[in-house]
Amino acid sequence: VLSPSRHRWCVTTDAVVEGVHFRRQDGRLEDVGHKALAVNLSDLAAMGARPRWFVCAVAAPALARAEVSALGRGMAALARRYRVDLVGGNVVRARELSLTVTAGGELAGRAVLLRSGAQRGDLLYVSGTLGGARLGLLSLAGALERRSLRAERRQRRPEPRVRLGLLARAHASAAIDLSDGLLRDLGHLLAASRLGAELEADRIPVDPEVMRALGGRRALRAALLGGEDYELLLAVPAARAAAFERASSRSNERVTCIGRLNPGRGVRIRDAKGRALRAPSGGFDHFARRLRG
Amino acid sequence: VLSPSRHRWCVTTDAVVEGVHFRRQDGRLEDVGHKALAVNLSDLAAMGARPRWFVCAVAAPALARAEVSALGRGMAALARRYRVDLVGGNVVRARELSLTVTAGGELAGRAVLLRSGAQRGDLLYVSGTLGGARLGLLSLAGALERRSLRAERRQRRPEPRVRLGLLARAHASAAIDLSDGLLRDLGHLLAASRLGAELEADRIPVDPEVMRALGGRRALRAALLGGEDYELLLAVPAARAAAFERASSRSNERVTCIGRLNPGRGVRIRDAKGRALRAPSGGFDHFARRLRG
Repeated sequence: VLSPSRHRWCVTTDAVVEGVHFRRQDGRLEDVGHKALAVNLSDLAAMGARPRWFVCAVAAPALARAEVSALGRGMAALARRYRVDLVGGNVVRARELSLTVTAGGELAGRAVLLRSGAQRGDLLYVSGTLGGARLGLLSLAGALERRSLRAERRQRRPEPRVRLGLLARAHASAAIDLSDGLLRDLGHLLAASRLGAELEADRIPVDPEVMRALGGRRALRAALLGGEDYELLLAVPAARAAAFERASSRSNERVTCIGRLNPGRGVRIRDAKGRALRAPSGGFDHFARRLRG
Repeated sequence: VLSPSRHRWCVTTDAVVEGVHFRRQDGRLEDVGHKALAVNLSDLAAMGARPRWFVCAVAAPALARAEVSALGRGMAALARRYRVDLVGGNVVRARELSLTVTAGGELAGRAVLLRSGAQRGDLLYVSGTLGGARLGLLSLAGALERRSLRAERRQRRPEPRVRLGLLARAHASAAIDLSDGLLRDLGHLLAASRLGAELEADRIPVDPEVMRALGGRRALRAALLGGEDYELLLAVPAARAAAFERASSRSNERVTCIGRLNPGRGVRIRDAKGRALRAPSGGFDHFARRLRG
């Protein structure tokens, strides 16, 4: 039973599934619990909501008591940190392990961040650094010469940008969290706001370790296309940009301006000299295919 | 984004999983969609809450567009009937199909029904009839001489007792919905309220078709132990019983008094002549095992 609220609410739901979002052999069930909650808090952060409660439905083959505790510990540590209460749950039998979390957040004041609020001319900001989760996945798959425990941790224990989301409400016109990868999630935001975008390649905050491990070109790809970084992508009106940067800096939240929204279609990426890296003639999906290929 | 509310809220989550709650070959995905929402509305009904919104997370192998629509149609029809809004969702890949629904309900006024509120001397009421879902399961499994489409429908498309839950708030001291079976769910209520109970076997509203198909003794077992009827079990103070019965009757909600709570431990069941049908010496679980055996 939740108390009445004079604020509006957001509710979000997201699942992590064995074989899709994690492999049992990669590790600790604490991490699975953490991630199941973190991806939902990240969604709430992207709406500028303060997380308040969550429920968790576990589908699992027979789990040992110790395994259930491990899932719970991972969730509880993160929940405590953001003062979000577990208010219900459910366990059912299933062949594969999955956790479906639904989380609710409070929207104090009038502002809410949606994907659809962006305006032409808005500056595009991204939080933190990109590509780390992708490097982690490569590392977990044994595809790197040298394993990167830091990147693996990044992949398995994403940090939701809750504080940044809350402070961004006063400045940003739209936001989305990066679960599918920068280009794909930018595509969602552009579709919802009916806009195009121009990105500056050399401004994209590629994780330095990704740069070292993969080299410039592959690192940029990892930053543009690799998913699961759970950073925030924000559209900020130019007139609010300075105030937004100051507020972020005061809260030790790293944000980087990577481009600008325009009234066109699709995404253009320019290098330091202003040359188009690619002309995404077929729109985002086509572009992504070519970058991947 | 949900509006502010001056009322308290309940949130509940429950999943239906292929191979556990339904078999793909048994039928229509509409029914799966219906059931996924219905079991959650039933949970809210047992708390006396008015359902307002739900989110649905689908985990599925590649689904055809038509299959997704079918799931949606089953959910939408029920959602419209109870005026509950789908406010979010998520789809992930998985080896088996499962739907996890989280639903929120509003608690107008001060009352809320919990499992833990029952008092010694309260009368036990159950809604509708029992055993039908179990008969449906037998029918679907081909275990009956003659298939019962009505019982199959009962198993696949349970009707949440939302109206009864709402009206019961003014009268009942505790409630639970019957998902695991009368004796097991009564056990949950007794454990939460630290009480025992005495049931009168001949008052238990066994579904007449179950009686005909299985005969007296097996039918009583189906009513006591068969799950998924999604009726409500309510504890009502004796002083409120007449008013509760009148209110239920006015709303065309069938309720039957089946026994009474006492300060003891466990459940005793008596026949029409007052003889103990079983002496559940080892408590509920032991008793259930013996009834099953």
